Amino acid sequence: MGYKSINLEEKLYKFSDHWSPKIIAQMNDYHFKLVKFRGDFVWHNHENTDEVFITLDGEMSIEFRDGKVDLKSGELFVVPKGVEHKPFAANECKIMLVEPAGTINTGGVSSDLTLVENVWI
Amino acid sequence: MGYKSINLEEKLYKFSDHWSPKIIAQMNDYHFKLVKFRGDFVWHNHENTDEVFITLDGEMSIEFRDGKVDLKSGELFVVPKGVEHKPFAANECKIMLVEPAGTINTGGVSSDLTLVENVWI
Repeated sequence: MGYKSINLEEKLYKFSDHWSPKIIAQMNDYHFKLVKFRGDFVWHNHENTDEVFITLDGEMSIEFRDGKVDLKSGELFVVPKGVEHKPFAANECKIMLVEPAGTINTGGVSSDLTLVENVWI
Repeated sequence: MGYKSINLEEKLYKFSDHWSPKIIAQMNDYHFKLVKFRGDFVWHNHENTDEVFITLDGEMSIEFRDGKVDLKSGELFVVPKGVEHKPFAANECKIMLVEPAGTINTGGVSSDLTLVENVWI
């Protein structure tokens, strides 16, 4: 049988839009997604799930109502469920997200940036 | 409040043993673990869960009964639940695993390499 690895860099070449996560893998009922950030996202939270950010290339921050965390390439952060957060990247930053399938990027907040459906790449 | 990212490289410096995953983060009931592979692991499977391998540094392979997959740095692979597999790395390879908390490294197989409890680093 043919088994093939998923190359993150090759997948990142397949899209250029910002704030629009693309699914690259599924583990049980969780999705691994790649996304490119630039600028400010919207304040939101995910009521029912934690969310993992892994910075692959570049730098980003996640603001919270009472602080923030800075992430550089090769760093990981778990945003706890229910916690309001706002990602920000001064320059383009490439990120892998891990979260349950069906998680909406803007959580319970409706915004121009809300993506109801994520595509596989 | 103080928020701190998890730096994968710094965490990898904290241990040198092989085949012994260390927990670095929890997302819902899943653990993110770092592990160093060298040589041959044992054939095993995880009856109830998929398992994600992300190669951070080095090269490894996962053998299956009907083939194999090669993974180099920056590549990801999902071993489907129930599928027998045997990881292998000719030289030391640094890997991140994602799997449910409580997943045992050798699955349903008891071996000298079986780790019943994973430690946090």
